[in-house]
Amino acid sequence: MAEIRRDLVKNNWVAIATDTALKPNEFPINKRGIETSGNHIFCPFCQGNEPSTPPEIAAFRNNNSQANTPGWSIRVIPNKFSVFCLEGVLEKTHAGIYSNYNGVGRQEVIIETPEHGVDLHELNQAQVVQVFRMLKQRYNELSADDRIKYIQIYKNRGIFAGASQDHSHSQMIGLPFVPRWNSGPADYYLKNEQCLLCAIIAQEKQSAIRLVYETEHFLLICPYASRFSYETWVIPKKHCEHFGAISEVEIGDLAMVCRAYTQMMVKTLQNPAYNFIFNTAPVNLPYQPGFHWYMEINPRMLVNTGIDIATGIYMNPVAPELSAALFRKNMWKQI
Amino acid sequence: MAEIRRDLVKNNWVAIATDTALKPNEFPINKRGIETSGNHIFCPFCQGNEPSTPPEIAAFRNNNSQANTPGWSIRVIPNKFSVFCLEGVLEKTHAGIYSNYNGVGRQEVIIETPEHGVDLHELNQAQVVQVFRMLKQRYNELSADDRIKYIQIYKNRGIFAGASQDHSHSQMIGLPFVPRWNSGPADYYLKNEQCLLCAIIAQEKQSAIRLVYETEHFLLICPYASRFSYETWVIPKKHCEHFGAISEVEIGDLAMVCRAYTQMMVKTLQNPAYNFIFNTAPVNLPYQPGFHWYMEINPRMLVNTGIDIATGIYMNPVAPELSAALFRKNMWKQI
Repeated sequence: MAEIRRDLVKNNWVAIATDTALKPNEFPINKRGIETSGNHIFCPFCQGNEPSTPPEIAAFRNNNSQANTPGWSIRVIPNKFSVFCLEGVLEKTHAGIYSNYNGVGRQEVIIETPEHGVDLHELNQAQVVQVFRMLKQRYNELSADDRIKYIQIYKNRGIFAGASQDHSHSQMIGLPFVPRWNSGPADYYLKNEQCLLCAIIAQEKQSAIRLVYETEHFLLICPYASRFSYETWVIPKKHCEHFGAISEVEIGDLAMVCRAYTQMMVKTLQNPAYNFIFNTAPVNLPYQPGFHWYMEINPRMLVNTGIDIATGIYMNPVAPELSAALFRKNMWKQI
Repeated sequence: MAEIRRDLVKNNWVAIATDTALKPNEFPINKRGIETSGNHIFCPFCQGNEPSTPPEIAAFRNNNSQANTPGWSIRVIPNKFSVFCLEGVLEKTHAGIYSNYNGVGRQEVIIETPEHGVDLHELNQAQVVQVFRMLKQRYNELSADDRIKYIQIYKNRGIFAGASQDHSHSQMIGLPFVPRWNSGPADYYLKNEQCLLCAIIAQEKQSAIRLVYETEHFLLICPYASRFSYETWVIPKKHCEHFGAISEVEIGDLAMVCRAYTQMMVKTLQNPAYNFIFNTAPVNLPYQPGFHWYMEINPRMLVNTGIDIATGIYMNPVAPELSAALFRKNMWKQI
């Protein structure tokens, strides 16, 4: 099991594999050279290669197909390189001025399609619905373990977004505490007695300059303080704390708008790497008002530089008002 | 001038160019494809191309050579794409729930050599001494403007470290406020009544498991909570708040050990991208104890992924105890 070590300079935490170390030539950048899309060498996520992954946790399968064999449309496995393990209880250890928690937690990979070389935004509506349904199912199942306090769902697409595998997949991490960065909405509520995301929705609908698109259930905006060029948020219009509470109707609407937006964005920005990030409320903790789940879609047009890493202050060369105008223009156009 | 916008979710700031936007094909990743080292196409940092940059701010020059002509060994220019400008006074503007500061500040590029294709770690001792001397000079000159409260010096080497130019250079940003991430050492002092970096030095010297090397004036360690695989810090052993107070003797020692370490690291890790980051005390503010300047050298073996971006918690697959052992072994070896 790994250690979650306290970073005293940044007042934050780092999850470190303490017993094993990736060697220089095992890192994705070195291993694959600098290709953004690798050749289809042996892929553990492909149908037929199920025995090369750890045993599956969940899957959507055709009638009668057995676990860890072909016949699945979505498959969930533990992350082979996870630093977390759902065993024992959370314990803090001190070593002089330093301290760490043991890595009680969970890290899962959601393989979004059995087919290699097809990205999430290239799947059809029914397939994307299945992906979001599985994310909801695993979110709710992980929430049932009260050692888990925060669940982070995210997707890395392309090497410049941190993907080490080309085959389309998302990830889910169950953490034993709430990262400080993810308590912003609760802090805002304490100070202002209103939901930050509801306030953002109200202001963005009124001004409309950063609006990308609106569906029955979701608002798409380029956020005011976009850290990433062309960053876009998908916010449920109805106040809702947990992604796990999303309804079937909302899943259909979310799949529709994510497909349409991402297909357009990938064309507009010339096939960039991107991250999907789901921000949601903590679990298994006393109720704190102010959380409202939403999704970030971050094209990765720049690599994080020394200044971002040192200060946390991102330099963004694209005003969100300009990216929103471009996306509005292209949203339903054949480009 | 740009806006420094408040990020209400992360309780942080983002510097945004509000009037102009880089187009998709103008971003370094798209423009240069995915080469880590571009061909030597037209380079504005090369000797002879001085007229293609903004007028120089400072330079070390041969006798009689004129500003903005060849004959320099180190040349400092404003960053052409800077979002900051040292004009007027800092003003805060509110727009509904949002707020921003105007971009009062400064962003400079220190061109480390007139020669293209030679990296900092490939320069000779006298040249690296010149680089650090110029960083000290510009640090102290920027400190003289009391609108600047924090100076961040950093270097991006290679596209995976965020470099948009191949030609070897560092950067210096003067910010009108102290980023929250950079106030950790002062917070630590308030709580513990001791300097965090002095406490780290004491503990690391005693345990020795994360020690890489020690010179007369500096200690090299792989830090306990390394965010980056093979991250290394260079810490002045004598308590000293400002990088700008470094002595000539210390500059010589720092140049020696940075050259030796970085040459070894680049060989050991198979030529990775890397960042240099100088952490130092705020300027032009009431005295706060607890700061102690030091340098981070971060190989960039992985790209920041969705989980780092979402939670601030880095996942590091290499224990610093193991990277320190590898670096100790290789430090003075021909590899």
